[in-house]
Amino acid sequence: MSIIYRRAINYYETDKMGIVHHANYLHYLEESRINFLDSNSLSYALLESKGIYSPTSKISISYKKPVTYGDVIEVKTYLAEVSPVRFVFNYVIKNQKTGELVAEASSEHCFADKDGRLLILKRIDKDLADKLDTLVEKKGE
Amino acid sequence: MSIIYRRAINYYETDKMGIVHHANYLHYLEESRINFLDSNSLSYALLESKGIYSPTSKISISYKKPVTYGDVIEVKTYLAEVSPVRFVFNYVIKNQKTGELVAEASSEHCFADKDGRLLILKRIDKDLADKLDTLVEKKGE
Amino acid sequence: MSIIYRRAINYYETDKMGIVHHANYLHYLEESRINFLDSNSLSYALLESKGIYSPTSKISISYKKPVTYGDVIEVKTYLAEVSPVRFVFNYVIKNQKTGELVAEASSEHCFADKDGRLLILKRIDKDLADKLDTLVEKKGE
Amino acid sequence: MSIIYRRAINYYETDKMGIVHHANYLHYLEESRINFLDSNSLSYALLESKGIYSPTSKISISYKKPVTYGDVIEVKTYLAEVSPVRFVFNYVIKNQKTGELVAEASSEHCFADKDGRLLILKRIDKDLADKLDTLVEKKGE
Repeated sequence: MSIIYRRAINYYETDKMGIVHHANYLHYLEESRINFLDSNSLSYALLESKGIYSPTSKISISYKKPVTYGDVIEVKTYLAEVSPVRFVFNYVIKNQKTGELVAEASSEHCFADKDGRLLILKRIDKDLADKLDTLVEKKGE
Repeated sequence: MSIIYRRAINYYETDKMGIVHHANYLHYLEESRINFLDSNSLSYALLESKGIYSPTSKISISYKKPVTYGDVIEVKTYLAEVSPVRFVFNYVIKNQKTGELVAEASSEHCFADKDGRLLILKRIDKDLADKLDTLVEKKGE
Repeated sequence: MSIIYRRAINYYETDKMGIVHHANYLHYLEESRINFLDSNSLSYALLESKGIYSPTSKISISYKKPVTYGDVIEVKTYLAEVSPVRFVFNYVIKNQKTGELVAEASSEHCFADKDGRLLILKRIDKDLADKLDTLVEKKGE
Repeated sequence: MSIIYRRAINYYETDKMGIVHHANYLHYLEESRINFLDSNSLSYALLESKGIYSPTSKISISYKKPVTYGDVIEVKTYLAEVSPVRFVFNYVIKNQKTGELVAEASSEHCFADKDGRLLILKRIDKDLADKLDTLVEKKGE
């Protein structure tokens, strides 16, 4: 199951090329991912209250069409993969008004304790691990 | 005693007006303040290792001339005031090449523990408090 | 007439103190100000399409209580003053859940052309200037 | 030929996990890339003065070990590939003190005009294109 996250572009996210600076897209991915988890009662706040952190281990992103202040993006977000120690989200970003493809991206995250040591999620909280498993969606629809 | 901190402007700090976005100046103030404290063996890292945090309680800044990617700024930084629970830095930012005044600013910071409770510095570490006192410079020269 | 702007705190806006980094508040002010102007059909996009830019000339902000990821802020925003070449917004930021005062701030902005030269708004667009005048609210209620 | 770019971590680049937020690494890549080009008399400023922009078209990054305030990173940067319409940089980021691998990354950029239309660099400026070709280094040593 994918979730669409809508988001207006902020002025301060643009750069002197007149478009959103490419680093800010990683913020959009984070917001979308957190929105997805929140919507499924699996918030970062809940995870962190249990001592489970999820540092980002990989990002890949392909920028297709720029967006700028005044635009609204729609980020289709889905959980593509869960393993005992990590999970992967995929994202498709579109320009709400034009429908154009803005970017495609993927992010990988580990489960870790406060000091960055990897955790096996189901050993820490089997219910959480099971719940996360049910959210996996291979094809993003 | 004031210290000059030199800093090239980054591309990602500009916005679609073609100039540095005004929020980023607070980063320059922080870098300059930390550089001042480091240069005087009073680093944030040292303070935090003693459980002393210094959250910002006030900022005022007046923007005079914009800068952009390609420019270098010089931030004259000095400690204007220390009280038992807070300290104030003043800053004068110039464009290195033109010598023009870019901005003037002031920042106030508290001493606090990890949970944000105010600390009286000299009760925690009298040596640190004494050292900080010696660095105060009312007129910035 | 003041407008309330609601906004969830993003994870990436926190710093290692565990709270929102103070520079990010300037982003919240910008979003609130732009939301205020949009709500009154005076968007930055409209202004910029007429060649009118509004660089920030002053910011002052007093931080009262920290917020962090998981919190929602409410920014009460009002236009405190308009002169021929500048305007001033005031802001009161509260924590939505606790009602606590988070910060109070003020921002001043100029009217300028693309190259940063000051403009007298009513000479460029008298309708816009008149409209802006009607929005001024001295007391924020 | 690779170039090493050294850079202290800023406090404001950390997040509540106590480490640098992963989005900020894209800033480090940009700084390193610009430093590489500057060192070879091919600055973005020069390119933009000729109407040549280089928007980012792809990023991939693998995060190995976190860094935080107090650390210094060294970014080994080299130009891995140049084609008529794009170029690719590779990066290896290490922790200066420990020598540990912090991250590996790659970024791809297009040549484009101010309105985002792709440019064939050698048609715009053959000298620039030739110079860029001479800087390509397949193996990063």
